[in-house]
Amino acid sequence: MPNPVLVEVTRGSMVESIHRGAIAAADASGKIVASLGDIDSKTYSRSSLKPMQAMVLVESGAADAFGLSDAEIALACASHSGEPMHTTRVADWLARIGLGESDLACGAHPSRYEPVAEAMIRESRKPTRIFNNCSGKHTGFLTVARHWDVATNGYERAEHPVQRAVAATLGDLSDAKELPYGIDGCAAPNFATSLAEFARAAAKMAEPDGLAEPRADAARRIIAAMIAHPELMSGTGRVCATLIRAASGRAAVKTGAEGFFGAWIPKSGLGIAIKIDDGAGRAAETAMAAVLDRLGLIGGDAKAAAILRAPVLNTRGTTVGERRPAPALATFELS
Amino acid sequence: MPNPVLVEVTRGSMVESIHRGAIAAADASGKIVASLGDIDSKTYSRSSLKPMQAMVLVESGAADAFGLSDAEIALACASHSGEPMHTTRVADWLARIGLGESDLACGAHPSRYEPVAEAMIRESRKPTRIFNNCSGKHTGFLTVARHWDVATNGYERAEHPVQRAVAATLGDLSDAKELPYGIDGCAAPNFATSLAEFARAAAKMAEPDGLAEPRADAARRIIAAMIAHPELMSGTGRVCATLIRAASGRAAVKTGAEGFFGAWIPKSGLGIAIKIDDGAGRAAETAMAAVLDRLGLIGGDAKAAAILRAPVLNTRGTTVGERRPAPALATFELS
Repeated sequence: MPNPVLVEVTRGSMVESIHRGAIAAADASGKIVASLGDIDSKTYSRSSLKPMQAMVLVESGAADAFGLSDAEIALACASHSGEPMHTTRVADWLARIGLGESDLACGAHPSRYEPVAEAMIRESRKPTRIFNNCSGKHTGFLTVARHWDVATNGYERAEHPVQRAVAATLGDLSDAKELPYGIDGCAAPNFATSLAEFARAAAKMAEPDGLAEPRADAARRIIAAMIAHPELMSGTGRVCATLIRAASGRAAVKTGAEGFFGAWIPKSGLGIAIKIDDGAGRAAETAMAAVLDRLGLIGGDAKAAAILRAPVLNTRGTTVGERRPAPALATFELS
Repeated sequence: MPNPVLVEVTRGSMVESIHRGAIAAADASGKIVASLGDIDSKTYSRSSLKPMQAMVLVESGAADAFGLSDAEIALACASHSGEPMHTTRVADWLARIGLGESDLACGAHPSRYEPVAEAMIRESRKPTRIFNNCSGKHTGFLTVARHWDVATNGYERAEHPVQRAVAATLGDLSDAKELPYGIDGCAAPNFATSLAEFARAAAKMAEPDGLAEPRADAARRIIAAMIAHPELMSGTGRVCATLIRAASGRAAVKTGAEGFFGAWIPKSGLGIAIKIDDGAGRAAETAMAAVLDRLGLIGGDAKAAAILRAPVLNTRGTTVGERRPAPALATFELS
């Protein structure tokens, strides 16, 4: 059975496009407290996995051994825009672990922050690996490798001790029996979970009292770092930053490519996983805003409201339609 | 009942995202010769409508009155990339009808051809209306207004004689009883048809022997112009240009926003309409390539084959998945 329509995009009086998808909400006991659609098939969480991937960095003691700040932990969870606040911090961090940009396994892509991207074009500066939105995550992997004194070369391969530790931690948190993987845009393995498994792992991080130390502390620090540094884990004006700020300390969220979106909600001890079937980021954004709205977490925040119901503009700036939650999502009960 | 899955995107061993949609194929008698999914609901064809919108330009005699070349007729059907070959020709054409860029009702957006967009950033040149991918269509509308000696101001409003003529012609060709409209990205009305209605109109243009003159001649000239100037009706390296070149004179195709794609196939007298439910252009491209492939129209063309089955690359340029026709599309019989 196909997943329900979660988001619709209108133009004039008609719905022009629709987005189907699924949502799982779990509590820290592992119980699914609410769901829409298929939450049991495996899918890639892509960059929404970064907070789980960062668990090893903190839990292993590597973060403390190298004196990482909350800002750096937020960068380990980031899909950043390649602004100076991101790239200079990643460069400093790499230097502190005795490595450099050439040790990163991710490829280069232009900054996602238009003023920086345009300035680099004007100055004929080519984007380098540190501008990759995942450069913080990769620096986190390298930090663990340095702490364990294992080879840094090949740290992005699934059989490397760092990636094996990531998979083991994710397996523990999610109760997943199998973790097949694909290669992410940044060349690191991305371990596939069901939405139920992802939501369970996120819920255990959001309310970690049932976890042993140092895991519980690692979860607390990672979520606190994302909430404290919304622009470092995304970028100026980005959706994650907007939603985290709107939630005023009550939720961390992390987008992923191909329509994934995860949330960690300490206040209610919930973990949320959303996947849009067709991979559309615009629909995942609206779906996540709707979930937070249903939980009373974005209140009257105007910027978050404009993600929940987004005007469709033409090239003259006139509103000609809107992107909005479809009925199944607008009436979704999360508890 | 939901539309079938037409296109799937894989990563590693798993399907990561899917795209549902519908396809209609009609012949010039108006008969639907093949279909997949819902072909009777109204939808916007967006820029795929341009060849129909251009009918009035040619049929009215305006094109001949102003001595338009095939290149300019192709530009009237274009979603162009804003390369010099496009913008200089539109500027010349506007001058020839005694108007200028400020008469265009479309908004500005950056060139879609990266070397031009980057050069403009380097030179601090702002995109102007002529760079709008629809500037040729708008100049066509203005040419009709000049030919009819009616007001050029307001030519983009649904009640203007030019737009009423567009709707009347589309109604005749498509047999649509109603043509609701929304406002397109360029501020012009976009008249909604069902996929069946669009395919019928395209088929009558592709094999116009049953149409009265001067309509039949207008249809022949428009399709010939698109086939003769694939880069003028799209841009360097664009999907429409690639598919038209691969078809070697046997088909014209025109993409539209939000996952629409139309085809005019004189060889077999067919009109084709594709709409991806979720609006994804990547899926519409693969679906159109698959339809042309099923009709034997793209043969061994390597660039077209890379649209039909497109590698998914990571930031290091490694293939990590693929975009491909799903089974329903791969086995679709068109005749």
